[in-house]
Amino acid sequence: MSVNSFGRLFRFTTWGESHGPAIGAVVDGCPPGLALDEADIQHWLDLRRPGASALTSARSEPDRVRILSGVYEGRTTGTPISLMIDNVDARPRDYPADAPDRPGHADFAMQAKYGLRDPRGGGRASARETAARVAAGAVARLVIPEVAVEARVIEVGGETAGWPALIERAKAAGSSLGAIVECVASGVSAGWGAPVYARLDAELAGAVMSINAVKGVEIGAGFAAARLRGEDNADPTLAGGITGGIATGAPIVLRAAFKPTSSVGALGVAGRHDPCVGLRGAAVVEAMVALVLADHKLLHRAQCGERRGS
Amino acid sequence: MSVNSFGRLFRFTTWGESHGPAIGAVVDGCPPGLALDEADIQHWLDLRRPGASALTSARSEPDRVRILSGVYEGRTTGTPISLMIDNVDARPRDYPADAPDRPGHADFAMQAKYGLRDPRGGGRASARETAARVAAGAVARLVIPEVAVEARVIEVGGETAGWPALIERAKAAGSSLGAIVECVASGVSAGWGAPVYARLDAELAGAVMSINAVKGVEIGAGFAAARLRGEDNADPTLAGGITGGIATGAPIVLRAAFKPTSSVGALGVAGRHDPCVGLRGAAVVEAMVALVLADHKLLHRAQCGERRGS
Amino acid sequence: MSVNSFGRLFRFTTWGESHGPAIGAVVDGCPPGLALDEADIQHWLDLRRPGASALTSARSEPDRVRILSGVYEGRTTGTPISLMIDNVDARPRDYPADAPDRPGHADFAMQAKYGLRDPRGGGRASARETAARVAAGAVARLVIPEVAVEARVIEVGGETAGWPALIERAKAAGSSLGAIVECVASGVSAGWGAPVYARLDAELAGAVMSINAVKGVEIGAGFAAARLRGEDNADPTLAGGITGGIATGAPIVLRAAFKPTSSVGALGVAGRHDPCVGLRGAAVVEAMVALVLADHKLLHRAQCGERRGS
Amino acid sequence: MSVNSFGRLFRFTTWGESHGPAIGAVVDGCPPGLALDEADIQHWLDLRRPGASALTSARSEPDRVRILSGVYEGRTTGTPISLMIDNVDARPRDYPADAPDRPGHADFAMQAKYGLRDPRGGGRASARETAARVAAGAVARLVIPEVAVEARVIEVGGETAGWPALIERAKAAGSSLGAIVECVASGVSAGWGAPVYARLDAELAGAVMSINAVKGVEIGAGFAAARLRGEDNADPTLAGGITGGIATGAPIVLRAAFKPTSSVGALGVAGRHDPCVGLRGAAVVEAMVALVLADHKLLHRAQCGERRGS
Repeated sequence: MSVNSFGRLFRFTTWGESHGPAIGAVVDGCPPGLALDEADIQHWLDLRRPGASALTSARSEPDRVRILSGVYEGRTTGTPISLMIDNVDARPRDYPADAPDRPGHADFAMQAKYGLRDPRGGGRASARETAARVAAGAVARLVIPEVAVEARVIEVGGETAGWPALIERAKAAGSSLGAIVECVASGVSAGWGAPVYARLDAELAGAVMSINAVKGVEIGAGFAAARLRGEDNADPTLAGGITGGIATGAPIVLRAAFKPTSSVGALGVAGRHDPCVGLRGAAVVEAMVALVLADHKLLHRAQCGERRGS
Repeated sequence: MSVNSFGRLFRFTTWGESHGPAIGAVVDGCPPGLALDEADIQHWLDLRRPGASALTSARSEPDRVRILSGVYEGRTTGTPISLMIDNVDARPRDYPADAPDRPGHADFAMQAKYGLRDPRGGGRASARETAARVAAGAVARLVIPEVAVEARVIEVGGETAGWPALIERAKAAGSSLGAIVECVASGVSAGWGAPVYARLDAELAGAVMSINAVKGVEIGAGFAAARLRGEDNADPTLAGGITGGIATGAPIVLRAAFKPTSSVGALGVAGRHDPCVGLRGAAVVEAMVALVLADHKLLHRAQCGERRGS
Repeated sequence: MSVNSFGRLFRFTTWGESHGPAIGAVVDGCPPGLALDEADIQHWLDLRRPGASALTSARSEPDRVRILSGVYEGRTTGTPISLMIDNVDARPRDYPADAPDRPGHADFAMQAKYGLRDPRGGGRASARETAARVAAGAVARLVIPEVAVEARVIEVGGETAGWPALIERAKAAGSSLGAIVECVASGVSAGWGAPVYARLDAELAGAVMSINAVKGVEIGAGFAAARLRGEDNADPTLAGGITGGIATGAPIVLRAAFKPTSSVGALGVAGRHDPCVGLRGAAVVEAMVALVLADHKLLHRAQCGERRGS
Repeated sequence: MSVNSFGRLFRFTTWGESHGPAIGAVVDGCPPGLALDEADIQHWLDLRRPGASALTSARSEPDRVRILSGVYEGRTTGTPISLMIDNVDARPRDYPADAPDRPGHADFAMQAKYGLRDPRGGGRASARETAARVAAGAVARLVIPEVAVEARVIEVGGETAGWPALIERAKAAGSSLGAIVECVASGVSAGWGAPVYARLDAELAGAVMSINAVKGVEIGAGFAAARLRGEDNADPTLAGGITGGIATGAPIVLRAAFKPTSSVGALGVAGRHDPCVGLRGAAVVEAMVALVLADHKLLHRAQCGERRGS
């Protein structure tokens, strides 16, 4: 019910504004006894990190995560795992309180909802919040060691190759580009999911669509399936690893469409932003998929026990 | 948390198998004092009804809904509204217990999950379950009288016109066709939604992806946004009425991709099925969108009061 | 979140007014493969039934339960189990719409909340709703076959014996009596529960306090513990089978205080009511305890797997 | 669903072990625009603080709370409020990893549940966790400015007076005493609550029973109601401000029974503990009652709008 939480049994809550003192996540429901230290989480944060390459935002943050609870002598205890990342490079002055709404941004909608807003860097509605998701996702991976979750960019600005040059040009022009990310999860047991509302496909779609800048999600054949005939559809690879909301045991395949960021130099808007958020989006898609799968593993175990599934 | 429920404050739970005695929905959290009788719900069920045209399934059911609780003298009382639809045309013998799994169907996955399954007509994983959603959606519409939710098919089998002939040919050939449904919700107040996990876009995506046969969902420019540049993206119509997870006040636009049904005569599988489920899918998309919006109206009112939003 | 649901993983939703056409419960999250037929549920309903003895309400209802979904060939399928009980002896005319509020009853509060109410027999706020709980509780027992849950009245009107005569006198005088019910659950595995908010003691207390007419709940030594010294408290039997919110493996012992019904002839209020609701209350306490325990068994299995607990 | 969260709409999640680096709470769903600074929260923490008097534990901690998110220029923004309290006086060496289970403590049950545990000061199952509740409760009070929530000890060791001497003697003897705390909430609008499962009485009971050391809860006449007759019960003061799960508008009155702490010098158990936890328990009861009421205010507003209630 909590509007800043995600998941049912393996559940996390994130907090923090882009330019406040810190951001964080509290992971609840993690099984006890799993080996976990800060380096396990740091690994994934570093992959996501802005400034990791010339092609992403100039904001340079170490993003050092600290584990404040839920781990004792290198093992999860089953109690809430509190993760915190200090904001060491926040520059609130880039964002004066009376700044105009940035086109395409959430500024106006946040104001309409709450009647006030933290204007610094988008406040809560910032891509920075995704670092907390990646940290939580690193814990989720420990719950599903049998599953490999890998996402990669398959298209930038409508092109399937030649991206560095494309992005450099967009950056130089103060523009930005959209992208498509594909994620494959292998090793998911047949049986995870549920046939009606806690469907695995529905929850993956919701999880991925909750990432800033994502405007579309598809599973298996996706939108192309709308152009198929029934006899083609019997091909199991078109299902993307899920039928009737339940995993079949085949790899789960989904794709997410990232729009280009709106805050670009060409529009005279301050702040440091990515010429292509999709590049960092892959790490966030992976995290969200891992979080959904960890939750569904526990949900399946709760209802059907450990013997079922295959 | 309940795996057969949907929504937070305006919440419904559905039950029933395709070929059991009845199906139903329990709607909880409905505001009191709304005018509601069975005809209000029947109207929407009739629009969805199989057999309503030569282009849909031959299964002919009156789908008469009864209100068993939560309404007194034509007004909702605020207590749970129990809706029930008897299954008068169930033919379990079409589906012997030892029937082989139907290709592309949930049969195998249901068996893997539960270790047993009700083989009659797909049991729980049947399109029939969507009648319960449409009934619940009819109640949701009463909660958001200021909003118009309208969905229509915009593409069948990859074509934007000429559908009747296309569908007739597919039917004659024992085949089936996919479709794309577009839904527009006008009148949504700026401010509904939330910036991180209870995002309006994420919940709409999950709701629509939970409909059987849907394999993709997109909002606003959707997958096309991945091919845009930042300066194009400043066009507010591309946002589809939602930025940062929160409604902007502009019409919300989403599209769903329906795959063709797999159970077609050409494959020698018994049962009565639609040559194009997308045709009936529009009514279900509308219902799910109405259900999400009703829930978010209450959620916004809870946190921000009635004065906010516009 | 749903206000008419209870439980997390093993979750049920009840619906229905005292004098509407029927009442019911939808049980979601039940493990698949459990043997269940209507007689299993009927058994517990018959024990609860008003009119079962001269000492309870004159309302005489067969309370026949029907299973409408979720069971196939005598086994639960893992999908929602819809249970319905027709109201065959409803007498709405006993309760005119302009009837005055009954003292001590929920009439005034219901009106204040919803602005209108179903005046027939208390509508939703009726003891009749507890039949749906007992039906759901019968399913819960199947989930925890290793646990014996038994409740009994230990005090009526302040007396520990001589109850039939006491109740007869109260009935003849148009009065009613309170009671204390004690419930013991044996066979609960050490480890069920959680240390902070999903504490087993907290959830049992909430569950039992949600029964109409209950005004107090205590676990183990209960209120008497407030008069103990630390050294006495080391006696493990005083803990009532729960420490730190988690089951110890010892029998769980709780007690509930039922107030007398307010609607008594002496006050000139129509309707048929029990001279001592506590007598029927024992069956409802048992059901609620079984429901909480079934939920916590699944919750523990989800987080800690099947190997843990003892 | 989260096992370390509490509430539906106004919801908080706590984290942290007694002797880890910090403890904290994340408050989600808080209405925007409320004036809040650290001093508002500190005020309530100071009232709860151990070491505040000679009669409580010798552990002396400043308990300085920091607000890490969700507040901008002294106003809540509607986003998650992250509260953190550093553990500056933790002494893990008082609790060696191979320490025997302390009698009456949660040590054994924690071990049975999780298969391992953080042995330092009870880890998660420590009274220290209640500081996070008190901090969250301070925010809850802002949501219900019209309500006064006041709890006080009414009985210590079975005595209604003479407590300082009693406690001094218990302390000198290495013993400890139980207590009864009474809480009165005035100004609650008629209509808050719900008639069946989200009952105000049930949720208050669960909330208060979730406090460490509480073994019993009662509302209004409570256990004494079991000894009343129906005609006595018509006295509205006996209802304790709640009928049928819904507030009547009269003051809500509840009582909680605190057992004595088990870890006392007489048993040769190390660590610093209170001779009477009930003294500090009053602040925690107040916090939990405020948290439930804030949640129900929002829940009522969601379903019934702002005009209802009185």
